[in-house]
Amino acid sequence: MLPIAVDAMGGDNAPREIVAGATTAVTDHGIPVMLVGRPEAIGATDLEVIAASEVIEMDDDPGQGVRRKKDSSLVRAAEAVRDGRASAMVSAGNTGATMASALLRMGRLPGVARPAIATPIPVPGGSPTVLLDAGANAECSAEWLVQFAQMGSAFSRQRFGVDKPRVALLSIGEEDTKGSNLVKEAHALLRDAPGIDFIGNVEGRDLMSDAADVVVADGFTGNVALKTLEGGIKFIVNAVLGAMMASDEAREAAKVLMPALAPLAEDLDPDTHGGAMLLGVNGVCIIGHGSSSARAVVNAVRVARDMVETDLVGQVAAAVSAG
Amino acid sequence: MLPIAVDAMGGDNAPREIVAGATTAVTDHGIPVMLVGRPEAIGATDLEVIAASEVIEMDDDPGQGVRRKKDSSLVRAAEAVRDGRASAMVSAGNTGATMASALLRMGRLPGVARPAIATPIPVPGGSPTVLLDAGANAECSAEWLVQFAQMGSAFSRQRFGVDKPRVALLSIGEEDTKGSNLVKEAHALLRDAPGIDFIGNVEGRDLMSDAADVVVADGFTGNVALKTLEGGIKFIVNAVLGAMMASDEAREAAKVLMPALAPLAEDLDPDTHGGAMLLGVNGVCIIGHGSSSARAVVNAVRVARDMVETDLVGQVAAAVSAG
Repeated sequence: MLPIAVDAMGGDNAPREIVAGATTAVTDHGIPVMLVGRPEAIGATDLEVIAASEVIEMDDDPGQGVRRKKDSSLVRAAEAVRDGRASAMVSAGNTGATMASALLRMGRLPGVARPAIATPIPVPGGSPTVLLDAGANAECSAEWLVQFAQMGSAFSRQRFGVDKPRVALLSIGEEDTKGSNLVKEAHALLRDAPGIDFIGNVEGRDLMSDAADVVVADGFTGNVALKTLEGGIKFIVNAVLGAMMASDEAREAAKVLMPALAPLAEDLDPDTHGGAMLLGVNGVCIIGHGSSSARAVVNAVRVARDMVETDLVGQVAAAVSAG
Repeated sequence: MLPIAVDAMGGDNAPREIVAGATTAVTDHGIPVMLVGRPEAIGATDLEVIAASEVIEMDDDPGQGVRRKKDSSLVRAAEAVRDGRASAMVSAGNTGATMASALLRMGRLPGVARPAIATPIPVPGGSPTVLLDAGANAECSAEWLVQFAQMGSAFSRQRFGVDKPRVALLSIGEEDTKGSNLVKEAHALLRDAPGIDFIGNVEGRDLMSDAADVVVADGFTGNVALKTLEGGIKFIVNAVLGAMMASDEAREAAKVLMPALAPLAEDLDPDTHGGAMLLGVNGVCIIGHGSSSARAVVNAVRVARDMVETDLVGQVAAAVSAG
């Protein structure tokens, strides 16, 4: 397998945690990895390095960043995939710039109107719900939502082994008559769309449940839902942890509860699931959380390896062309 | 003060919990309350009863329900406010039908394009964030969002005593250039809108924080965000409670933590905050959670009393006409 190109400069903890995670992926999991970035920032390493002199910062404008910083780690990583030097790219950097780099350098798959970001939402005790579009396209047409359903179904199959993914549309009521004009139009198209198993509308409260395997939304709604969920969970988890640290007695009590809470904490940790996937581009592109730790990078590289080996890109292309 | 009309037939726990809550509001808080519904379902009571022979069920179509069931408890409650027999209405029933009853019987305030549902989101340790529209209007214009900002500011002042409420727009990034076309257009209008303190865009993760006092969204986005947050919180709370009940040891440990967790649980309980408020109609109309308990009804009646006494309706009308 060709190495996976990891953007060493992307994310709040770059390059230290990124390099550490990439190294662990090689040493502990035997996955070939190359680092992309400033050699002097990366430091001494046994891994192959593609030198890139520039960095697209977290707050750079994505389009401008990609156009102007042609020697940036993100652009060079996407070019490595395009040029057949790498099998996939992974970045925890600027999400918009990661998308733009992948789109402009790898290109779209034939027939894909717009790539979409697919984010796994943890469903403790079950297979994650794939939410897409989680933010690539703030304005969408109903036809794009149908393609998101097809691409998301392929991802759910390849990534989580769901044989016949149940696809739902994110709305404000289960009835077909509820929702925005876009949702009503998309509902009608999804009902007749080939190659997917459309089960109807779901609500925001169903995202963390087993109600559907794939939930489709425009990128604005999907991103609002995702960030609302992250914010709410973070808030409660911090409040519970705060209560557990409130006194010596509480700390002792917390120790008793930890074995029962640990699997939940593991499932809710964004570092566990290896990041979001950009679907619809001609290559595997994983978008990690900005705060990715070394563990998150290891998991992202493992997911990238799996998606290369099971030919996610070919499956997404087939799903879209059949639809 | 005129009595508050409580829909005895609305909600999953009607009429038992509703009647119990209404009775407590009278006996423990001295608030005048009248019940609206089927006398035989309400049973023996010392409260005044407006007889209504029909019930709009939770799954009835709101528009049809209000048009066809003219002798329903919801329609009769709204008429009691219109006719000067009641000072406010409270229902935990069908949300859409509550809105439609209030709109059709009480009417809109002068100049209001569309009424909106304002839902307080708990911010433990702080004043709740008012989210509107939380679901009344699935499609909105940018101009309506400006009115929501004005109405929501009046509500934040009257309900939570916030002197100069900070208004934000729900989007997918803080930059003005991010978001849907509607959000970009609304952002530009809000920046110049009179009578409000617009602080810019916020993201879903800011809803449970002190970032803003009022968060404006179209009713589709607002409802998705609200239900996503409710679902996420419910999920985590249930998981933590499950861990606390997993063994005798865990139950003992949970007892130690309870004093620190109780204020959080209280704040997160939807029954604490007395429901959502329909803003823009010519009367006080409170929409309770479908699962409202007697305690929720007491709190809703108390909020209704406060909003009548502080002339919320007049303040909303003034805010809109000044804008």
